Amino acid sequence: MKVIELHKSVTASNDRDAEELRKEMKEKGVLLINLMSAAGSGKTTLLSRTIQDLEGKAKIAVLEADIESAVDAERIEALGAKSIQVHTDGMCHMDAGMTRRGIEEMGVDGMDIAFLENVGNLICPAEYDTGAGRNVMILSVPEGDDKPYKYPLMFEKSDVLVVTKTDALPYFDFDLDKVAHRARQLNPHIKVFPVSAKTGEGMDAWEKWLLKETESWKFHA
Amino acid sequence: MKVIELHKSVTASNDRDAEELRKEMKEKGVLLINLMSAAGSGKTTLLSRTIQDLEGKAKIAVLEADIESAVDAERIEALGAKSIQVHTDGMCHMDAGMTRRGIEEMGVDGMDIAFLENVGNLICPAEYDTGAGRNVMILSVPEGDDKPYKYPLMFEKSDVLVVTKTDALPYFDFDLDKVAHRARQLNPHIKVFPVSAKTGEGMDAWEKWLLKETESWKFHA
Repeated sequence: MKVIELHKSVTASNDRDAEELRKEMKEKGVLLINLMSAAGSGKTTLLSRTIQDLEGKAKIAVLEADIESAVDAERIEALGAKSIQVHTDGMCHMDAGMTRRGIEEMGVDGMDIAFLENVGNLICPAEYDTGAGRNVMILSVPEGDDKPYKYPLMFEKSDVLVVTKTDALPYFDFDLDKVAHRARQLNPHIKVFPVSAKTGEGMDAWEKWLLKETESWKFHA
Repeated sequence: MKVIELHKSVTASNDRDAEELRKEMKEKGVLLINLMSAAGSGKTTLLSRTIQDLEGKAKIAVLEADIESAVDAERIEALGAKSIQVHTDGMCHMDAGMTRRGIEEMGVDGMDIAFLENVGNLICPAEYDTGAGRNVMILSVPEGDDKPYKYPLMFEKSDVLVVTKTDALPYFDFDLDKVAHRARQLNPHIKVFPVSAKTGEGMDAWEKWLLKETESWKFHA
């Protein structure tokens, strides 16, 4: 398991770094997807199931960002997928320079999709462009349906909202329609995919979107 | 609903500010409890039930810290409890100066306990002493039992770990003994209270601890 220690990028303009990285990933034909959520929302579980479901259809690599430990990258590697663990030196987000370091250390040649599993929280990751081609946020049912009120920036910055752990809907007071409505008030273009990585329900729509975006990223300007 | 906008404290030493605030709260006989957790772990629900259960036994005020919205403070106020909402200007934590501002705006004279519901994430709040007399962290069952590996500092800094949403244990792969064991490896003095604010299971032990600590804070040096 490769683990790299990252420090805050020293360049003046994160936005410029992000644009450059995005352009390079476009040239390589690799769709970089920035996956953001609170701790414990099921990012790694969603990725594990997605990697298994898309075997033979898309080559997926995963850049795992955390403050400590390598438990997430170990789970991804156990599936036979390419993965690297990066540590953020206590920081609660990844910036474009850190993402570039991770991508270069891991290597993404020949890949179709590179997921960046950002540090688990709904605040700082929304503030930094990582250079990703698509931003995806995850909200799990047990976290509650008031999150669009509390973390509006995350909803504004995301192309997709994946609502995970929908198998737990019977046990929690969570109104899926209300969340989708609030999310669209903040961001009219956001796509909402309710899924259960446990039962597989809803995974199909999410994976179809992934394949469509990957194709569009590769072949369209 | 009173909402105040806070900005980063300008003093040089947060640790010194925190010690001063702690001393003043001791003189007032009000136990300030810093409540930390990821977003969506059920802090406000735990507080709501605790306030109702301890009616007539302890006077409780709640300082709600968030980046945006006042949904949490509104829930607490609806119970008839004293509460104030503070906004952190985008910051993912509260420091001692911000906590003092909130406490002073809300007023805690005659109170027994003042809860600070810190900004929801497991990273930044662990790094700043707020001046609280006790630090309590919450981990909810759906977040998963790997959190002590990923956020060790939070476990090291907390006097108490409340494991919430235990009514959901049958639906999640969460090993309570393993979490308690890992937490104690990081912090041998940590107390662990598994609770369900929904069914009330385990609330008694948590509330007994609260009353005991409140008494000890008031009457012992």
